Amino acid sequence: MNPEAQRCVRSLIPAHAPRNPSGRAFAPSNIALCKYWGKRNEALKLPLTGSLSVSLGKLGSQVSIHLADQDSFQLNGEEVPPSHKARKRLFAYLDLFRQNAECFQVEAENTIPMGAGLASSASAFAAIAQAVDALYGWELSSEQLSILARMGSGSASRSIYEGFAEWVAGAREDGMDSYAVSIAPVWPEFRIGLLILSQAEKAVGSTEGMRRTRDSSSLFQSWPAQVERDLPAIRNAVLERDFSRLGQHAEQNALSMHATMASAWPPLIYAQPETLAVLHRVHTLRAEGLELYVTMDAGPNVKLLYLAQDREAVRSAFPEVQEVE
Amino acid sequence: MNPEAQRCVRSLIPAHAPRNPSGRAFAPSNIALCKYWGKRNEALKLPLTGSLSVSLGKLGSQVSIHLADQDSFQLNGEEVPPSHKARKRLFAYLDLFRQNAECFQVEAENTIPMGAGLASSASAFAAIAQAVDALYGWELSSEQLSILARMGSGSASRSIYEGFAEWVAGAREDGMDSYAVSIAPVWPEFRIGLLILSQAEKAVGSTEGMRRTRDSSSLFQSWPAQVERDLPAIRNAVLERDFSRLGQHAEQNALSMHATMASAWPPLIYAQPETLAVLHRVHTLRAEGLELYVTMDAGPNVKLLYLAQDREAVRSAFPEVQEVE
Repeated sequence: MNPEAQRCVRSLIPAHAPRNPSGRAFAPSNIALCKYWGKRNEALKLPLTGSLSVSLGKLGSQVSIHLADQDSFQLNGEEVPPSHKARKRLFAYLDLFRQNAECFQVEAENTIPMGAGLASSASAFAAIAQAVDALYGWELSSEQLSILARMGSGSASRSIYEGFAEWVAGAREDGMDSYAVSIAPVWPEFRIGLLILSQAEKAVGSTEGMRRTRDSSSLFQSWPAQVERDLPAIRNAVLERDFSRLGQHAEQNALSMHATMASAWPPLIYAQPETLAVLHRVHTLRAEGLELYVTMDAGPNVKLLYLAQDREAVRSAFPEVQEVE
Repeated sequence: MNPEAQRCVRSLIPAHAPRNPSGRAFAPSNIALCKYWGKRNEALKLPLTGSLSVSLGKLGSQVSIHLADQDSFQLNGEEVPPSHKARKRLFAYLDLFRQNAECFQVEAENTIPMGAGLASSASAFAAIAQAVDALYGWELSSEQLSILARMGSGSASRSIYEGFAEWVAGAREDGMDSYAVSIAPVWPEFRIGLLILSQAEKAVGSTEGMRRTRDSSSLFQSWPAQVERDLPAIRNAVLERDFSRLGQHAEQNALSMHATMASAWPPLIYAQPETLAVLHRVHTLRAEGLELYVTMDAGPNVKLLYLAQDREAVRSAFPEVQEVE
């Protein structure tokens, strides 16, 4: 248990026993349009810059937490053994909330594939934070829940909301001003198409990737400058429903993040040959006039961004696309 | 004819008619281990940073220039028509040297494929500068020839030498301190293997690529910081024959250059799916212990760097590799 994180949590939550026998919550996964890449505090998961995301509809995590005689963790109906790193991470997080050695029976259902660059940890920790809030009966605000979720997984701070959310970096050392706020609901014509090119586990996880990039990439020094351009542009594009502007900045932001990784040592190249084939195809289609953009996270998969009116053109170019509902 | 370039050339060359009926020179192509990427003066081809290269043995350009009644240009035995951009570029360059409206019959033989990322303009302009020097009988120094070559094509400044050459960026506005110097001969065990994945012409040339990157990539702001790390490291690695150090810095430098391009808008991605497959294979082989590194220029092809002792391992992984002799 990290003492710094413990202090932060204790300052947020009332010190009383659980008021309910269980708590339950759903949180959507999210895709960052302006990426979270680089921490200023690893223990508290405080980011170097702000970020902005859109939630993924029904794709996310449903979590139930029951008081029990001993800790247990079921993921998608299967018991996760105590040695598993996901379980260790879960209970290290729940340790932050225990008042009187109470134990938890946690059941989580993820509707998104694990480790495929779709941020299951974001929806999982956002749902856990809200389920814990329901269990204890704290009735925390969205901002407070966002802080708690953030301490489980940085990008979980944004999964507290449906629609577009901005995680404000904040400046305080204790992170009490580092939480996400809702920007706007998803607009009806806005579409996200998933291209799952590989479901393989990443060789290097995103926390380790962030660390390596920060320590060895010269170009990473200019990453905050890219975010300073993209974040306000994407926020305004969302508010004005200016899809082209959103797409351009989201794609440049994602490719810039991947660029910082490729310039690290040893180089971190999450793109696979199929990823690059998709990128070139998107660029060709765009040159032909289709308003189609991409974003990518720390993995080989591609997320397509387009408007409903172009759905058929996108499907005809990428028959395997899975549109988020 | 650019008046700034004209002034610089006139300050370097004696003002007399050609002393010989012809001049002839060979210059090797070169591959940058620390890349030239970004100009501080486009007309004079002055670079933002220094760079360092190794010459490519017999791969290069053989150029003969004869005095004639009218300008003509033969490339690899074929007449190049006056409308062709290569011919226009050649005679715009030769305009800088004409004393009394003399005309030139230029014959060039390139032993390297055009437009495949192998810098035929580097060897061509280095050979032209030396052939012009022979024709006029100026007897310029290597540094002066390097300046003249640079004004034809930046990387040509380094093709004046066999072996490892460093192009010192210089600080003067007229570029008189911006030339290459010889660092060391190629060491016998050092090997370069070419993987020609595509001979197609680039959609975006390197000058336009540089410009787009400078104007739109935030990460490019940190490119000089990467060069400041790589250039002295590669120079020392060459002098100490420390192949691992050379390889690491050369590869990080090349991937960082490509990273700045990928972070430009519209994105410039020269890598093709096959390029990425090669990179991943190299990284796997290196993780298995093979001392194999890559460098890449503004194109999809890959140059492998290795030692003679690993030649068979490299050939077995990449049967199509063309080793530079």
